[in-house]
Amino acid sequence: MPLDDTHDPTLRSWVASANTASADFAIQNLPLGVFAGARGRRVCAAIGDAALDLHACAEEGLFGSPDEASQACLAGSLDALMALGPEASRALRGRLSAWLRARRDGGHELRARLEPLLVPLDSLRLCVPAPVGDYTDFYASVFHATNVGSMFRPDEPLLPNYKYVPIGYHGRASSIVVSGTPVRRPSGQLKRDDAMEPEFAASRRLDYELEVGAWVGRGNALGTPIPIDEAEQHLFGLSLVNDWSARDIQQWEYQPLGPFLAKSFATSVSPWVVTLEALEPFRTPAFRRPDGDPAPLPYLDSPRNRDAGGIDLRLEVALRTARMREEGAAPHVVSRSSLRHLYWTFAQLLTHHGSNGCNLRPGDLLASGTVSGPTRDSRGCLLELTWRGSEPITMPTGEVRRFLEDGDEVTLSGACEREGAARVGFGSCRGVIVNGPAAAT
Amino acid sequence: MPLDDTHDPTLRSWVASANTASADFAIQNLPLGVFAGARGRRVCAAIGDAALDLHACAEEGLFGSPDEASQACLAGSLDALMALGPEASRALRGRLSAWLRARRDGGHELRARLEPLLVPLDSLRLCVPAPVGDYTDFYASVFHATNVGSMFRPDEPLLPNYKYVPIGYHGRASSIVVSGTPVRRPSGQLKRDDAMEPEFAASRRLDYELEVGAWVGRGNALGTPIPIDEAEQHLFGLSLVNDWSARDIQQWEYQPLGPFLAKSFATSVSPWVVTLEALEPFRTPAFRRPDGDPAPLPYLDSPRNRDAGGIDLRLEVALRTARMREEGAAPHVVSRSSLRHLYWTFAQLLTHHGSNGCNLRPGDLLASGTVSGPTRDSRGCLLELTWRGSEPITMPTGEVRRFLEDGDEVTLSGACEREGAARVGFGSCRGVIVNGPAAAT
Repeated sequence: MPLDDTHDPTLRSWVASANTASADFAIQNLPLGVFAGARGRRVCAAIGDAALDLHACAEEGLFGSPDEASQACLAGSLDALMALGPEASRALRGRLSAWLRARRDGGHELRARLEPLLVPLDSLRLCVPAPVGDYTDFYASVFHATNVGSMFRPDEPLLPNYKYVPIGYHGRASSIVVSGTPVRRPSGQLKRDDAMEPEFAASRRLDYELEVGAWVGRGNALGTPIPIDEAEQHLFGLSLVNDWSARDIQQWEYQPLGPFLAKSFATSVSPWVVTLEALEPFRTPAFRRPDGDPAPLPYLDSPRNRDAGGIDLRLEVALRTARMREEGAAPHVVSRSSLRHLYWTFAQLLTHHGSNGCNLRPGDLLASGTVSGPTRDSRGCLLELTWRGSEPITMPTGEVRRFLEDGDEVTLSGACEREGAARVGFGSCRGVIVNGPAAAT
Repeated sequence: MPLDDTHDPTLRSWVASANTASADFAIQNLPLGVFAGARGRRVCAAIGDAALDLHACAEEGLFGSPDEASQACLAGSLDALMALGPEASRALRGRLSAWLRARRDGGHELRARLEPLLVPLDSLRLCVPAPVGDYTDFYASVFHATNVGSMFRPDEPLLPNYKYVPIGYHGRASSIVVSGTPVRRPSGQLKRDDAMEPEFAASRRLDYELEVGAWVGRGNALGTPIPIDEAEQHLFGLSLVNDWSARDIQQWEYQPLGPFLAKSFATSVSPWVVTLEALEPFRTPAFRRPDGDPAPLPYLDSPRNRDAGGIDLRLEVALRTARMREEGAAPHVVSRSSLRHLYWTFAQLLTHHGSNGCNLRPGDLLASGTVSGPTRDSRGCLLELTWRGSEPITMPTGEVRRFLEDGDEVTLSGACEREGAARVGFGSCRGVIVNGPAAAT
């Protein structure tokens, strides 16, 4: 996919807040989302510190002659747009860029029509962008898999299938929540190391997982695999994902069928979907496999995927305890990682997923698994960072953490940045741990 | 839940085909389903060899004053009805029973209004009854778990957690298909025992799994567990499930996160949902744990569950090869089992599922896992029945089977039968194995 004028780093928007170097949502980004307003759920695009109400744009006739994309902007979620495929995404992006860019001639008339349709971000209640039909969670960082394997199977940290099979499992779709939703500490069966029998109790080893999720765009019919070189035509964009995990529940339940209740109590996603088109300037070669690693099997391999299957997305996890919040302290960054560390590209994950004929649907979410890198400070969860609690980390307040305590707030953030391109930010994915029963509904 | 006059075994219907002793759909059953007709998808109830179009009943004013249930019958799937909970199910059942029963006074006027709304079953295209938001597959037969464990982990067939944790995993919702849909043999990564590396090839160890699925009725809010004695108020009814499995793909991929592509290519469900109300005469004590087994933890235990948590549902698997079909031979029964063999009741499965606060939604499907019993002829999949292919079975034609061949047809069926109660049949769940790429769409 070639770069076009929407990627031009010198473009500026008449929405002034989009033009600062540190803005997440410059005019070269234009991520899509959904907010819940007085008139229902509405598709929108972020620009600077505002969101453009695309539902209103369609109603107001800004699209000119209505097309598929403008129709899809009238839906209450992004899946209608996702289903249309990359041509529609690209056309919508071109339109948004044209509407929002600063022009020499002023473009006053257009701007006067659009300005009333901008809503300040800080007033918005954002939603999960699409109803997730199926949520799949992969295990695509070899560093994460090796670290976790070392703790649980010191003799054989990395299982023999890892470098051949993009390992993944089905996750729980119902408990996907949008960033900002409090996360209730789950109870479950757990077995203390010195106990004969398990007990049912609140998890004492609650953890986050720094992940990135890919939203499926156009679907495939049951029985019809997707070749590796067509995979990205079925990917719409990316969001940040926190795959909250109760390590004590997980350890006791996960054999032989994998994680279940240790994960299904909540999974948080960031509300903005950064489209594949916006990520084009940040494409990078797929992970370089060390000498001695097998090549991917042919169905997962192509020159295009090797040359540009990766995405250079920097990621960060910050913690803030209740005390830090009270004292007005900023979140404390505990790890920095990058999507470049993934052993498998999203194209490979998607092609593998459909290789048995499994049908993927618009709005399905494929998460990467914990994005850990090779160094200690790039480990994407507390299990790894504190090495199962044996190496606690210390907060600026002097508080120590092995796992998450009640009141702890976890914030994931991500951005693409490189010389010669405008910054493309992902915003954040945030959640605070709460305890006690749910409020009556 | 007490029996009421809808369970009276002497009741007869004016739909004559419902009154034979071998009928699946007597007036005491009244299972619900959805068919695709010229005017869209419609909720219906089976009676004898016909279906009563409940959408039409609601439109024709047969419900009298419209209520929640009649409104739900206007939806294109059963989830609206499922969401209403057991009071509404019970009331609808009472109404259907009253409409369809033979009366001394003839009831000619009512019958004249209903008869045009009956559709012959053999003309119907039935659908998956509800859009499954999340599909969960359990592992609730201790016999199945022990058999499979013996093959893969001879030293430790049953893992230490099995008798405490109702083991389950998330399945794939998108590839759930209705009975009758052909099942395409999947390809995937598999590794021959004598090979150094895996290959991507068509599965050579394709299998069925005899399962029963419970449809979730009323949902629960995220963060709000469901106590064991309230569990059945969240269960709507049961269908048959065939959890098709590619054993060679499964063996290579399943560590450490569980089955994924070995299962996600297709899962078949029978179209009729037998409601919990219809199953009331067949309630039976929960599985009697052998001496020495631990008691369930308190959150999974109650006198009511112990006394009547089980359901006495007999199950059967029949195979028919392409040659048998050509020769006009009947399907050959290869195993007979019973839901009584499950180590965990559906109430326990549901309560466990929600015990971490996970929200269940109307239309979610909880499948039992393979319902194998203690004897060889009650083993619910070929993996067990042929002991991983080492003890092939012979068809009446002399053909032998280790795993499924192209053209093989698998039919699951089930029925509740006991002295003093009318037979409650489940119909069947059927699928034929086909090969080659999907037809162009």
